[in-house]
Amino acid sequence: MPLDAYRINTEPYYEPQDTEIDIFTAAYSERLPVMLKGPTGCGKTRFVEHMAWRLGKPLITVAAHEDMTAADLAGRYLLEPSGTVWHDGPLTQAARHGGICYLDEIVEARQDTTVVIHPLTDARRILPLEKHNEIVPAHADFQLTISYNPGYQSAVKDLKESTKQRFIAIDFGYPPPSTESTIIARESGADSDLATLLVRIAERSRNLQGHGLDEGASTRMLIHTGRMVRAGLPLAAAVRAGIVLPITDNPDIRAALTDAIAACVP
Amino acid sequence: MPLDAYRINTEPYYEPQDTEIDIFTAAYSERLPVMLKGPTGCGKTRFVEHMAWRLGKPLITVAAHEDMTAADLAGRYLLEPSGTVWHDGPLTQAARHGGICYLDEIVEARQDTTVVIHPLTDARRILPLEKHNEIVPAHADFQLTISYNPGYQSAVKDLKESTKQRFIAIDFGYPPPSTESTIIARESGADSDLATLLVRIAERSRNLQGHGLDEGASTRMLIHTGRMVRAGLPLAAAVRAGIVLPITDNPDIRAALTDAIAACVP
Amino acid sequence: MPLDAYRINTEPYYEPQDTEIDIFTAAYSERLPVMLKGPTGCGKTRFVEHMAWRLGKPLITVAAHEDMTAADLAGRYLLEPSGTVWHDGPLTQAARHGGICYLDEIVEARQDTTVVIHPLTDARRILPLEKHNEIVPAHADFQLTISYNPGYQSAVKDLKESTKQRFIAIDFGYPPPSTESTIIARESGADSDLATLLVRIAERSRNLQGHGLDEGASTRMLIHTGRMVRAGLPLAAAVRAGIVLPITDNPDIRAALTDAIAACVP
Amino acid sequence: MPLDAYRINTEPYYEPQDTEIDIFTAAYSERLPVMLKGPTGCGKTRFVEHMAWRLGKPLITVAAHEDMTAADLAGRYLLEPSGTVWHDGPLTQAARHGGICYLDEIVEARQDTTVVIHPLTDARRILPLEKHNEIVPAHADFQLTISYNPGYQSAVKDLKESTKQRFIAIDFGYPPPSTESTIIARESGADSDLATLLVRIAERSRNLQGHGLDEGASTRMLIHTGRMVRAGLPLAAAVRAGIVLPITDNPDIRAALTDAIAACVP
Amino acid sequence: MPLDAYRINTEPYYEPQDTEIDIFTAAYSERLPVMLKGPTGCGKTRFVEHMAWRLGKPLITVAAHEDMTAADLAGRYLLEPSGTVWHDGPLTQAARHGGICYLDEIVEARQDTTVVIHPLTDARRILPLEKHNEIVPAHADFQLTISYNPGYQSAVKDLKESTKQRFIAIDFGYPPPSTESTIIARESGADSDLATLLVRIAERSRNLQGHGLDEGASTRMLIHTGRMVRAGLPLAAAVRAGIVLPITDNPDIRAALTDAIAACVP
Amino acid sequence: MPLDAYRINTEPYYEPQDTEIDIFTAAYSERLPVMLKGPTGCGKTRFVEHMAWRLGKPLITVAAHEDMTAADLAGRYLLEPSGTVWHDGPLTQAARHGGICYLDEIVEARQDTTVVIHPLTDARRILPLEKHNEIVPAHADFQLTISYNPGYQSAVKDLKESTKQRFIAIDFGYPPPSTESTIIARESGADSDLATLLVRIAERSRNLQGHGLDEGASTRMLIHTGRMVRAGLPLAAAVRAGIVLPITDNPDIRAALTDAIAACVP
Repeated sequence: MPLDAYRINTEPYYEPQDTEIDIFTAAYSERLPVMLKGPTGCGKTRFVEHMAWRLGKPLITVAAHEDMTAADLAGRYLLEPSGTVWHDGPLTQAARHGGICYLDEIVEARQDTTVVIHPLTDARRILPLEKHNEIVPAHADFQLTISYNPGYQSAVKDLKESTKQRFIAIDFGYPPPSTESTIIARESGADSDLATLLVRIAERSRNLQGHGLDEGASTRMLIHTGRMVRAGLPLAAAVRAGIVLPITDNPDIRAALTDAIAACVP
Repeated sequence: MPLDAYRINTEPYYEPQDTEIDIFTAAYSERLPVMLKGPTGCGKTRFVEHMAWRLGKPLITVAAHEDMTAADLAGRYLLEPSGTVWHDGPLTQAARHGGICYLDEIVEARQDTTVVIHPLTDARRILPLEKHNEIVPAHADFQLTISYNPGYQSAVKDLKESTKQRFIAIDFGYPPPSTESTIIARESGADSDLATLLVRIAERSRNLQGHGLDEGASTRMLIHTGRMVRAGLPLAAAVRAGIVLPITDNPDIRAALTDAIAACVP
Repeated sequence: MPLDAYRINTEPYYEPQDTEIDIFTAAYSERLPVMLKGPTGCGKTRFVEHMAWRLGKPLITVAAHEDMTAADLAGRYLLEPSGTVWHDGPLTQAARHGGICYLDEIVEARQDTTVVIHPLTDARRILPLEKHNEIVPAHADFQLTISYNPGYQSAVKDLKESTKQRFIAIDFGYPPPSTESTIIARESGADSDLATLLVRIAERSRNLQGHGLDEGASTRMLIHTGRMVRAGLPLAAAVRAGIVLPITDNPDIRAALTDAIAACVP
Repeated sequence: MPLDAYRINTEPYYEPQDTEIDIFTAAYSERLPVMLKGPTGCGKTRFVEHMAWRLGKPLITVAAHEDMTAADLAGRYLLEPSGTVWHDGPLTQAARHGGICYLDEIVEARQDTTVVIHPLTDARRILPLEKHNEIVPAHADFQLTISYNPGYQSAVKDLKESTKQRFIAIDFGYPPPSTESTIIARESGADSDLATLLVRIAERSRNLQGHGLDEGASTRMLIHTGRMVRAGLPLAAAVRAGIVLPITDNPDIRAALTDAIAACVP
Repeated sequence: MPLDAYRINTEPYYEPQDTEIDIFTAAYSERLPVMLKGPTGCGKTRFVEHMAWRLGKPLITVAAHEDMTAADLAGRYLLEPSGTVWHDGPLTQAARHGGICYLDEIVEARQDTTVVIHPLTDARRILPLEKHNEIVPAHADFQLTISYNPGYQSAVKDLKESTKQRFIAIDFGYPPPSTESTIIARESGADSDLATLLVRIAERSRNLQGHGLDEGASTRMLIHTGRMVRAGLPLAAAVRAGIVLPITDNPDIRAALTDAIAACVP
Repeated sequence: MPLDAYRINTEPYYEPQDTEIDIFTAAYSERLPVMLKGPTGCGKTRFVEHMAWRLGKPLITVAAHEDMTAADLAGRYLLEPSGTVWHDGPLTQAARHGGICYLDEIVEARQDTTVVIHPLTDARRILPLEKHNEIVPAHADFQLTISYNPGYQSAVKDLKESTKQRFIAIDFGYPPPSTESTIIARESGADSDLATLLVRIAERSRNLQGHGLDEGASTRMLIHTGRMVRAGLPLAAAVRAGIVLPITDNPDIRAALTDAIAACVP
């Protein structure tokens, strides 16, 4: 099977935050495109992996960036001994053979990337490969999911109306404290006390968002910090190396963050 | 037949808004180029598909974007074992073999794309392929249709006068309420009550246009929402995922939109 | 003969506005380069076609645009089984084999395009092909004609002095009313009353130039509108689709233009 | 002989303005690079052709432009059946085989073009071809001449000090009236009265320089106008087509120029 | 072994400043990505070399710059007799065969470079090679380290939140005086007095940071100066050539720096 | 020997200004990179040639410019009959086979060029060729010298701190009058009186630096002027063509400069 390498065979650990599994399931049953919105490191990518496993479909993930071209998604000609040969890009593979195509941080991409998904995301469900002179009808299993972080998306980089209005949207945030501490314990091997403490630390950092920090500490950062403790580092050093130093270079914000953290460490 | 893959064999569902079918038919009978203007997701693409089916002509659709080059329309040389070989682009195919070429969102393209259509859209009806050293006379069936959304076209991206003045123009808007609810029922499987309600919701969102929203909810969004309900999601969740969340990230506008919607849901 | 495909065998219909035929004839007899200035759709391209037919010379037309490179005019190497092979561009073909080369909307091109014509437009009458290591002496029949629209040429895009001063210039405007109505009747099949009415409508639109419109309705637009009437559309609908809607998206200007037109329709 | 195609076999007509022939001769005898400064169409190119003929050396002329790359001067690899083969550019040909290389309007070029000439224009007299892994010692006959028009050279496009200081400079202006009328008579076939009148007309236009005109009429324009008269056009029409219309699109400046000219026509 | 050329066989000399060896060791044991922050020439690169030697892993170093593309990291196709062949880039080599990949001055790179490392730096630990149609799972030994200098990182060039939050961070500064003089003596062969004096000189220059100097003299500069003395240059000349002249061209700052230095030389 | 073409076999004439020969000799003995700073045409290039001859090492000179890429220094693949073959660039040749690599006007280059020299200019002394998958250890004879002119280096184009701090710096200025007149006499064949006069003229022009002139007349200009006199031109004409006209186009500055010069000519 062409996309077997993209199948997820073991269940990716995922703690639901709300009804996101129901919404995605309904959208997939109608093959409607889905847009995941939320901050850095809150679990959007993990959610898509979980849904692909749950639905039993291959998952092709592409990290978008501003130098990505339509050809990076759709495909291109490569020179082989017999001449130029067409190679499907990841989007074409997903459309042709059936699977979930996940475009991570889509707003980073240029408009030619976002336009290339239009005919796949309306009633036509086709992918015209102009350079290959082919119209690929989407496989019955094909679905498109994209994600972006509304927090640092500038006006310049916002999606066009004609793109936005094609998607069912799901909002993500940081998980509720008890869920987040469960996730941290599970993913970092931290005990329950440490996990709870790390969530409290994260809350302090998230309160500084908009007051010197662009974003607070993500669940990912808390897991990393928990793992540094497990690897033998003292808690203070782990928090400093895993949360305070990476998140800002500003000495004043570092001090404020360090104070806020100190206040909640026993 | 070279363009058989581009023929539309079953009638695409289309509810006329006004005299647009007459105007397009007259323009096609004179092979005059046509320009469709209107907001996102109001049915321009479906209209062209319907007209191509009605006139029995192949339809070649190209989604324009700012990185599209003249070669993407006209054609290019590819390296094959016997050397470089010319491959017609979609515009050249339509011109050479006869069909309707539809350039979607043409204002997104750079000027070299719009200039390439000039000799095809005046009395000459030719396509000079300078790189191929060939002048392609347009097939008797060839016609060019373009579309754009005047709502978010900046001064920078406006068409040049020498391009604009080549086209017969048709204006599109959202369909009248009864037409729109017929379309929603037909396309989403929603019953008549739900379809009517969705149109009322759309009207509320369209009233917010210019007051925080760039555009109101399109017919497409209403159809998506109807399908989410059909797939088992509660109405409120479907409206939130299908209309409110995709259309804006601004919390205040989201609240205003949610209130406006709540007021019209029984 | 190499340029036979570029010969014009039937007389292109052309109504002279002034002494432009004499001036072009004199310039061609001296092989001096000619520059045609005037608004969109007033007949510059048709005039060059007419002169090429009248002088019995091939006509190679190139529509200039801002992405056009010197190689698009002069030529380039293409990969063939025997290695790279030089292919003359349209300017080189005209210079080598003798013919009129017409560069439409030259101010759109970048400076490298305009510089490439310099040695062909002074006493040297040569085209140095640096990449091909060849100096092409212009054929005795070669002449260069360019056109541009001074109406929307920005300071940035103006021709350099060293380019301008190489050309004999001819000014074009809209034809006098009786000439224009003759042209419309001839080209659209409209009867004399309709043609006269369309000219009156055009005059109204041209009065709005600089008061909301960048340019008034061109002769081309009037011909299109006449053809829409011939194809069976009512006059009001044809004027709206052929003149009012294409020329502006501004509701106020559309209303003003519609009123102005209504005042002159019987 | 490799550069025979670049030899000038008949004396190019040239009327000296001042001691420019002596200065160029002295510079060439020392093989010092020369920079010609002056307005459009005043005879700089003709002067270099004359000097190349007088010194009996081949002349390779390159018109600089802002898209010209160092490779356009130095050379590049081309793909041939036996693999990539190096092809000398025009500067390399002149340096390798001996001749005058004339870079016209050098300030138009980007810095990589001007930097490539540095080692050829100091005591080293070498041309390093980094991509070809070769150091070409300049032939004993090699000399470099460049030109530019200080009149419209912006600060941005000025030559770097390290480039300027490598050149002997010669200033050009419009020729004195009697010389200019001799040139016009010789080049256009105009009789002495017409030539004298054309010079008077040119003086009027040159008085408008800085008062609406970027530059006055060049000697080239006067010759063109004389040739239009010889071809049968009335004087007024020839002056309008050859001087007034090409030089400006501004109606007020055109009127002022027309009045100034009328005042000196008998 | 594929990466044997990248193994470090002799211990790179390194004087610890703080607990950086413990933090890196813990992060490596968890294979967490590490970010080194600190000024120019303070020993970040040497530290990574030391850690690679200490952990017995190959070290692949890439100096980031603004023209570096994702392909420079991930790999590209090259044309070989049998057609195009894929060549792993340095990041792919480290991920595939196991080793520490060190991206020096990562903020210099464009976003496509930083995005390419995302799937390698979260729970997935994969490197999708879209162009090669392959997903490379990271080798068990693979770890990623990046560095940057917060001192002259502009807002434009800051790392994205979604990148930052993936890293454990370690701060570097100039070493404490006794450590720095030990390093200088060891690396330059300077005696203890000279080394101590050079550290005192550096402190003076570092006091000028923000008062005319962007950065003070680095440890590297002191070592260079010590080596110039060892090579026979008088101390004053060595300090001038090794510290004063390279660090600034501003005459006033040079004078201030020279005075500050003079005050501490015996 | 691979770099024999780059050896300098006869002593390049050089008059020392200060202790620059000692500093360079010491830096070379430690293989420390050297940066030469000074105005246009003051002898930096000649100095490097002299040092290469004195040290008996090959000298590979590269003139940096803003379009130079890292590949222009490091090397690239070229297509040959047997497929793509790697060709060392000039920096790689110097590093691999041993020699002085001189990068002239390095600040003109983009950052990717300056970053490529980093690993060659610290303790590593290696050149990683990422595209060739090779780490080239520098030959024992390899040394890097760069030059730039601080006079017209903008803030934008300044070297990065992390580049600057790798170099030993030597300042150059115009030579003292007696040295400069010795150089002029030697290089131009001027007699002692003329050489002395030319130095006096240069001093006048250098006094105008910052008062209308970006830089005064360089030693190179004086030599050129001397050679024009030797070639038979009168002194006034030679000074005008060799100094006044090349250095500025501003009529007022030309007048001031001409007056200043006249005052010191006997």
